[in-house]
Amino acid sequence: MTAAFDPQTIRALAFDVFGTVVDWRSSIVREGEMLSAAKGLQVDWPAFADAWRAGYAPAMDRTRGAGQAWADIDTLHRQILDSLLPRFGLQSLGEDEVVHLNRVWHRLMPWPDAVGGLNRLRGRFVISTLSNGNVSLLVDMAKNAGLPWDAVLSGELIQKYKPDPEVYRMAARLLGCTPAQLMLVAAHPSDLRAAKACGLRTAYVHRALEFGPDAAPKEARPEGFDLVAADFIDLAGQLAA
Amino acid sequence: MTAAFDPQTIRALAFDVFGTVVDWRSSIVREGEMLSAAKGLQVDWPAFADAWRAGYAPAMDRTRGAGQAWADIDTLHRQILDSLLPRFGLQSLGEDEVVHLNRVWHRLMPWPDAVGGLNRLRGRFVISTLSNGNVSLLVDMAKNAGLPWDAVLSGELIQKYKPDPEVYRMAARLLGCTPAQLMLVAAHPSDLRAAKACGLRTAYVHRALEFGPDAAPKEARPEGFDLVAADFIDLAGQLAA
Repeated sequence: MTAAFDPQTIRALAFDVFGTVVDWRSSIVREGEMLSAAKGLQVDWPAFADAWRAGYAPAMDRTRGAGQAWADIDTLHRQILDSLLPRFGLQSLGEDEVVHLNRVWHRLMPWPDAVGGLNRLRGRFVISTLSNGNVSLLVDMAKNAGLPWDAVLSGELIQKYKPDPEVYRMAARLLGCTPAQLMLVAAHPSDLRAAKACGLRTAYVHRALEFGPDAAPKEARPEGFDLVAADFIDLAGQLAA
Repeated sequence: MTAAFDPQTIRALAFDVFGTVVDWRSSIVREGEMLSAAKGLQVDWPAFADAWRAGYAPAMDRTRGAGQAWADIDTLHRQILDSLLPRFGLQSLGEDEVVHLNRVWHRLMPWPDAVGGLNRLRGRFVISTLSNGNVSLLVDMAKNAGLPWDAVLSGELIQKYKPDPEVYRMAARLLGCTPAQLMLVAAHPSDLRAAKACGLRTAYVHRALEFGPDAAPKEARPEGFDLVAADFIDLAGQLAA
């Protein structure tokens, strides 16, 4: 905890999305199982989901290399997916089916507390995404899941990915806040540390099951952030929303 | 009307905001009258509102000049406002009062059909702003007025103002649409013509009172656009939303 923190100083909350707001793993497994049932496929969908997600950070890192063109997450997800299709016995899918599967990230389910918590927080604060997902992905997800964002902000707007400090500074600028008036809400300490280094306030949310029930446990109460919350309802309570 | 138009081809609607969604003139007059009542000032608020708005296009044009730094609408509104204060007998306002008055643009009232129409349209289409207003202004306005945007897009995101074609192209790109899948909704033919030149579909909405009851009449049914609507309820009906 940072001793000086006062919720009254916060004007806006920016949310990491994948893993913090939505449960990407269960969503991919569920849609995969639907695909298996429809097509008679045998696929280890939890392993598939983990492999897809594991490709994400290296794919973003490649876009940061010298001379590399920036590419959005839809494109990176498709590149990773193409590499996974043979490995998981999905070569028989047609192009339309692959396109649909790739867009599962546009249809991810919120964690059970997310919509209720966001609706509470929204009454008191401007609430925005601050995601590496592209804007159209985030807009589709919000419509599909009922996420009541006031603004949809993405690294896409400046063609950079978190944890690039420019992404956090962009959010404060576009929301008309000083960095100290903006709080990043995320389930990932690395994201929060980068935001903190830019002067943002930080709230860690413990998404114990983000990587599934068998993954190494995530830390419930990491040090160094302004708030630590069990979920968005708890966060709303701590912020008096 | 363009003969080939089919509403089924539209995926997203981008809305001009000042004048199309919100009634800037009545809003400024109303807040001005509240200020007069509170402070005992005599001000011709309709003339003030018209003068403020009249400074807007020239101010944007100045930011397009060679060597000029881009500035957001809050900044331009303040520059114009500062020039109007002596002319309208408002020199006695303190800095906090001037800041508050400048932010009336963050609190503009929607036209009577706007919120209901947007809620209908939102069930069928992605709905977004596409405004020269800055993002924080548009977010504040949406929260204040209950405008249910799926995305808040602004020329600010690329530091350009409509009718620069890059602004319309940005909207299609960020919303994941082809230009032909995106329809601009606006009360201003010049905005619609610029969008049409970029390949967007166009809907004109007749806001007869935008410039007040004594202004030169606006054309009710200008030629050359895909749809002409009396208001957003009419637009929703024409788009089967």
